[in-house]
Amino acid sequence: GPATLDHRSLLEEDEFHRLADGTIHDLQEKLEEYGDEVQVEGFDIDYGNQVLTLKLGSLGTYVINKQTPNRQIWLSSPVSGPSRFDWDRTSQCWFYRRTKAELLHLLQDELLQLCGQSISLS
Amino acid sequence: GPATLDHRSLLEEDEFHRLADGTIHDLQEKLEEYGDEVQVEGFDIDYGNQVLTLKLGSLGTYVINKQTPNRQIWLSSPVSGPSRFDWDRTSQCWFYRRTKAELLHLLQDELLQLCGQSISLS
Repeated sequence: GPATLDHRSLLEEDEFHRLADGTIHDLQEKLEEYGDEVQVEGFDIDYGNQVLTLKLGSLGTYVINKQTPNRQIWLSSPVSGPSRFDWDRTSQCWFYRRTKAELLHLLQDELLQLCGQSISLS
Repeated sequence: GPATLDHRSLLEEDEFHRLADGTIHDLQEKLEEYGDEVQVEGFDIDYGNQVLTLKLGSLGTYVINKQTPNRQIWLSSPVSGPSRFDWDRTSQCWFYRRTKAELLHLLQDELLQLCGQSISLS
């Protein structure tokens, strides 16, 4: 199951929503611009019900959502599978404790690999 | 990363979509009925862009989506975390290779635990 919560470092719920929504909306905008540049059949970006979905046709689907009780952003990637990001106050970014990956760097790397064109997310 | 694909047993893409869409749409209907019965603040079920989202307010959010290249249904659960289900031709159900859990049984068990009311999904 999910990692045990560390309540000492848990964000307040409103701060979590502000940070996570900011990241997700910024991501949506940049991915929409990216979609105009790349040649990927079936490229589709959608935000609904607080879930961001990036469809890359036969390359697979990314899903990014908030998991409020854990104060995490969860990512489903067709490349790296599932991962769960906590907010790091020091570096001011979302990182996955198990691999030390940063959300935006991971997406940058994978999108370059999948779509053959760079994207600047961070 | 994701498990290596076993191409011998990979579903044809149209069969995969038929099976996965059937499961997801059936799930959506049953969860909508369930939402009328349970007393969970913030209960909301939504299907959009081929992603099914079940919000249970402060209890967390479930996300269920198709991952077509892998012929899998992916689940993000606030209880059990992420899991990825393959179609089993013999038992005609979606199961998670690593834990042998069945998608619908897992959801039944967790929803009973979270919402305090049983639901029949399978």
